[in-house]
Amino acid sequence: MSAVGTIHGVGLGPGDPDLMSVRAHRLLTEAKHVAFFRKAGRKGQARQIVEGLLPDTVVEFPMEYPVTTEIPLSDPRYNEMLSEFYEEVTQHLITLAQRGDDVVVLCEGDPFFYGSFMHIYERVRNVVPVKVVPAITGMSGAWTATAAPITWGDDVLTVLTGTLPEDTLTDYIARTDALVVMKIGTNFEKVISALKSAGRYGDAWIVQYATMPNQNVLKLSEMTEDVTPYFSIIVVHGQGRRP
Amino acid sequence: MSAVGTIHGVGLGPGDPDLMSVRAHRLLTEAKHVAFFRKAGRKGQARQIVEGLLPDTVVEFPMEYPVTTEIPLSDPRYNEMLSEFYEEVTQHLITLAQRGDDVVVLCEGDPFFYGSFMHIYERVRNVVPVKVVPAITGMSGAWTATAAPITWGDDVLTVLTGTLPEDTLTDYIARTDALVVMKIGTNFEKVISALKSAGRYGDAWIVQYATMPNQNVLKLSEMTEDVTPYFSIIVVHGQGRRP
Ligand SMILES: C[S@@+](CC[C@H](N)C(=O)[O-])C[C@H]1O[C@@H](n2cnc3c(N)ncnc32)[C@H](O)[C@@H]1O
Ligand SMILES: C[S@@+](CC[C@H](N)C(=O)[O-])C[C@H]1O[C@@H](n2cnc3c(N)ncnc32)[C@H](O)[C@@H]1O
Repeated sequence: MSAVGTIHGVGLGPGDPDLMSVRAHRLLTEAKHVAFFRKAGRKGQARQIVEGLLPDTVVEFPMEYPVTTEIPLSDPRYNEMLSEFYEEVTQHLITLAQRGDDVVVLCEGDPFFYGSFMHIYERVRNVVPVKVVPAITGMSGAWTATAAPITWGDDVLTVLTGTLPEDTLTDYIARTDALVVMKIGTNFEKVISALKSAGRYGDAWIVQYATMPNQNVLKLSEMTEDVTPYFSIIVVHGQGRRP
Repeated sequence: MSAVGTIHGVGLGPGDPDLMSVRAHRLLTEAKHVAFFRKAGRKGQARQIVEGLLPDTVVEFPMEYPVTTEIPLSDPRYNEMLSEFYEEVTQHLITLAQRGDDVVVLCEGDPFFYGSFMHIYERVRNVVPVKVVPAITGMSGAWTATAAPITWGDDVLTVLTGTLPEDTLTDYIARTDALVVMKIGTNFEKVISALKSAGRYGDAWIVQYATMPNQNVLKLSEMTEDVTPYFSIIVVHGQGRRP
């Protein structure tokens, strides 16, 4: 009889494989099972990052999000569908661990910072051993790409998601020194409008695909497209005390 | 005649050497010169993290902060002394780069997130080539150590420094979902008082020396000491949407 295995939630960092931690790298090159989220029909960003690193013998478990495009976020069925999906995939991971295998779950950025892995984590933490490897966040990748520090002295940093209502966004943006906005995608116009109302539009940068081969950094006000990819972060730098 | 060298600002992550990036690890094991900040008479935290990783032939340049304990932060001489110090050490790094050598500057956490390296960066960026390696922040190390996710769904995350006035702290704490407080040390009582006024004291965790051998994680309300080390972070977890 074998001991119970461990589920490792492994943060991969912002995208460049050279930016994953030494620990993450070791866990990947020795992995027996890897699991990762993806949209149906896509390769999956996390899986992409580890291309070429996994052993030939690895068993892959793609966790495909249910198609929810026809259900609005506010509909209770949306949450139900997602919840069922997380239950199902979690059950499979638990089965692997209980038969004695370790499983590496790939996570974009840091697992505990708006990560999908958290939904697995909460479901397994009292059932089988689980360990989390922190990682460089997408936002660290993004502000480094702008070639300017994000916070100085006693600057306040506020992190918002583009999914918030416009008024809420405007309120928080008006009060902060440094700003990061995540989850922009379809909320792009709303976020721009909030930045304008708060008087910070002219200071904002947008970073698409930070640290990835197709990285793109530009001042928001100089952007010509009116759409932006899912992997986009808006940054406003703090201007605090600097001797 | 040799080409100009590059100054690398290399983030080491929160403390555990296993959590530095693959890139940071490579730059360190190949380094010709390493520079790092420290207090006079101390080994220096950043230098400590890389113990055993540097080549035998490396040339070390400890940058010792001037002793400022007798000058209050508000006195203009404080800023002047620091500014002179940064000028001086920067000049040495530029000299090394101009004679063709690469230099690795060690940074705790992520260099562009409240890091001392930023003061060097601003002084060299238009003089010699400079590159920054982002890293896992102390706060990622801290929230991972609490074994609970920091932000869910559309939680707002606010990052504050204990150096802010108490009223300002209270205001921001009362409005945020998730909270991180950095630079606590001598501001400990003020931060506690602000957390109490904002009604978040009971939800707060403190993490001392996150990911280091002497890591200590506890609920703030269960802490018995009334002092905390420089390497301390306070965390309040967001409670947002979770299917
Ligand atoms: C579900 S959250 C996951 C965040 C991740 N756990 C982290 O630590 O960065 C997804 C959002 O992260 C942001 N993001 C993550 N990595 C990014 C990158 N390399 N470039 C741009 N945006 C990124 C985007 O705003 C995206 O909408
Ligand atoms: C000058 S700031 C540097 C922050 C660093 N650049 C980062 O990315 O975390 C120093 C503060 O960082 C926090 N800190 C950094 N690493 C830490 C760790 N491993 N454990 C606890 N606190 C840490 C403490 O609050 C400390 O006062």
